[in-house]
Amino acid sequence: MAAVTISVGRRSLYLWNSIWRYGKSLCWAGFGGRRTVSTSNHFMKAEETSQSPTETTQELKNKKVKTGILMLNMGGPSSLDEVGGFLERLFLDKDIISLPVQWKLGPAIARRRTPKIQEKYREIGGGSPIKLWTEKQGKQMVELLDKVCPETAPHQYYIGFRYASPLTEDVLEQMERDGVQRAVAFSQYPQYSCSTSGSSFNAIYRHYAKRGEPTRMKWSFLDRWPTHPGLIQAFAEMIKDEIKKFPSDVSDDIVILFSAHSLPMKVVNRGDPYPAEVAATVSRVMELLRWSHPYRLVWQSKVGPIPWLGPQTDKAMRGFVNNGHKNFLMVPITFVNEHIETLHEMDIEYGQELAEELGVLNFRRVAAPNDNPVFIQALVEIVKNHLVSGELCSQQLKILCPMCVNPVCLQVRNWILSTSN
Amino acid sequence: MAAVTISVGRRSLYLWNSIWRYGKSLCWAGFGGRRTVSTSNHFMKAEETSQSPTETTQELKNKKVKTGILMLNMGGPSSLDEVGGFLERLFLDKDIISLPVQWKLGPAIARRRTPKIQEKYREIGGGSPIKLWTEKQGKQMVELLDKVCPETAPHQYYIGFRYASPLTEDVLEQMERDGVQRAVAFSQYPQYSCSTSGSSFNAIYRHYAKRGEPTRMKWSFLDRWPTHPGLIQAFAEMIKDEIKKFPSDVSDDIVILFSAHSLPMKVVNRGDPYPAEVAATVSRVMELLRWSHPYRLVWQSKVGPIPWLGPQTDKAMRGFVNNGHKNFLMVPITFVNEHIETLHEMDIEYGQELAEELGVLNFRRVAAPNDNPVFIQALVEIVKNHLVSGELCSQQLKILCPMCVNPVCLQVRNWILSTSN
Repeated sequence: MAAVTISVGRRSLYLWNSIWRYGKSLCWAGFGGRRTVSTSNHFMKAEETSQSPTETTQELKNKKVKTGILMLNMGGPSSLDEVGGFLERLFLDKDIISLPVQWKLGPAIARRRTPKIQEKYREIGGGSPIKLWTEKQGKQMVELLDKVCPETAPHQYYIGFRYASPLTEDVLEQMERDGVQRAVAFSQYPQYSCSTSGSSFNAIYRHYAKRGEPTRMKWSFLDRWPTHPGLIQAFAEMIKDEIKKFPSDVSDDIVILFSAHSLPMKVVNRGDPYPAEVAATVSRVMELLRWSHPYRLVWQSKVGPIPWLGPQTDKAMRGFVNNGHKNFLMVPITFVNEHIETLHEMDIEYGQELAEELGVLNFRRVAAPNDNPVFIQALVEIVKNHLVSGELCSQQLKILCPMCVNPVCLQVRNWILSTSN
Repeated sequence: MAAVTISVGRRSLYLWNSIWRYGKSLCWAGFGGRRTVSTSNHFMKAEETSQSPTETTQELKNKKVKTGILMLNMGGPSSLDEVGGFLERLFLDKDIISLPVQWKLGPAIARRRTPKIQEKYREIGGGSPIKLWTEKQGKQMVELLDKVCPETAPHQYYIGFRYASPLTEDVLEQMERDGVQRAVAFSQYPQYSCSTSGSSFNAIYRHYAKRGEPTRMKWSFLDRWPTHPGLIQAFAEMIKDEIKKFPSDVSDDIVILFSAHSLPMKVVNRGDPYPAEVAATVSRVMELLRWSHPYRLVWQSKVGPIPWLGPQTDKAMRGFVNNGHKNFLMVPITFVNEHIETLHEMDIEYGQELAEELGVLNFRRVAAPNDNPVFIQALVEIVKNHLVSGELCSQQLKILCPMCVNPVCLQVRNWILSTSN
């Protein structure tokens, strides 16, 4: 996608929305010298996806699904109307938030936050594109899987979001109705955290515990893939491509900021494996790049007053600018789809507002893997290897965090181990 | 080294000292069932090393050193008499500890702590073996380097400790006197932290800044090697060997605890690259082991009331035991030599005292790489690749931590970059 250079003094919402809709790049001259903001290749038009739930069901009836790949993610509201429900489900999730009288306080907090969060979704075009990207990924993935894994074909992808439509619980019932024989719970978070993949697995367990009738599917769990060579290659190639887009005279002065969603320190100190797995991904990517540039793993999206894992992305940017660095390439190393944290937090809050304030000369952001062909191929290989291995889950998933405080986690593990019988 | 089984009720200092001196293994039946503690292959007798400073100087005169490899480490007191001086230098190091009226308070704290720390060194045999191991590594490394790198031969190793003899400042002068042409500052910490490798580099800079007369040597900096394949292979092979020593009926129930020296959160949040580099090492080792067992990266040696990075090693052990795990393999993933943190903290405090309290059935500890031949070969390859590359230092060393608060760090980087001219 070719870069379009437009001169603007300040962020324009109209322009921004246009960019989001049509996937263009934006380079503009602002305060403190020439500044480049790239958001190329991160976006998707709604009309690019054609699949509707009705069609899916019809297709499935014809296909008699043998293997269902349940693509699990927190999800995001596809429209502004869905923001309230999304936040309510999030604040009711005891796996990641613990509040007094949560059944009452959770929805109250969600209601209070809704207008502010709606505004953010408005700024990125009116909703999260995460469902659209996941559909695109799933479609391509199963098409390829049918070719390379005929013994487990036909494959069908299902999307199970934790807090947005399609909700995991509804999709599980659809999978049962479709007569799926073998089900793979495939976390779309390459790095495992109890707050993300863990919460989705807990939701699957809770659904069956509540349902009474056990699942008819044979389950296995693809719980993490932080160092899969295809994932690493996809990121490395995208980084290389973005580096080429910097002015040639600054290409040696770029600092690569791998930015990951942070965690509260109480979760880190409990033994959540996520920080170490994120660091493993970063190291592999830099190795493939032959350590071409200085870099740091930084952590974004901290909320509230309690301590979270740092260094924080925004503070790190400030610090690097203070140290004389003015060219940044940001990499969303834990996100495989564009969503609010890439499109708003990275592109608008860091890439535009903060970059402008600090006089950053060039800020570019690597796209989430989205439908990058190398990444799609990686998804195929990850699932194929998993299916061929006959593995139930990783060794890591079999143990709880050492200081686990969530009694459901043990029940989930017992249930997962029982599904192999 | 064959394991010796001895029945004792409680830890015996006499026995322990004997073990340290003669490198035997200890398995004993204690409370809560059969418990195995292994400390095999971690030790070294003083008489195993023959090299004295006088001999070194004489040898060097004969060899006319072309390349000097300065092996940098915090070091440790070789005898109980050296503990006081070691602690005083540590508490005076502004690179890692910031105290009010440090020139006075530092020595006072050191004096107060000396008896307690001396007792710990007494329990591991009367001193730290770190100098002995480093000498052994250095000797073997340069012998091999002379063979595989004739163009930079003769090579000589030098040991530069930060707080114990031989002190970095003294060794730098020796290198100048020896007429070393090319000097490699080789951090013996595979993973870079400002508190360890950074402090040593700062010490080199400060020495030359104070000295007035510039160095006559051409310097380069081997500042990190967390994922070198030889390092990874050495750890993976040692882990495999230790796993074989567990009773066969529990070999599937082992939890591998990669234990690393922790850092205060204020250092982590400043952007110290160490946590991410340690995690990278762990991931590589587990990959080479084909993710054979569940594992966690845990953090030891926290002191004082301020928050440090967790999960803490001891708390994680408690948590895992609460979750039903009673077989542990501990791996000192950031230490390449035995010293107080492996021999006392891991072997005595965790492997004996805590394991006994918790009713751990089997606790084994992987040796530090020490003189493992795969590790020695790794050291050779790391230095050889560095010499051949002509690289001044890693890209990472060229940038400061984003929230660096130490003005010397910038001066050091400027000095390092100037040495390439």
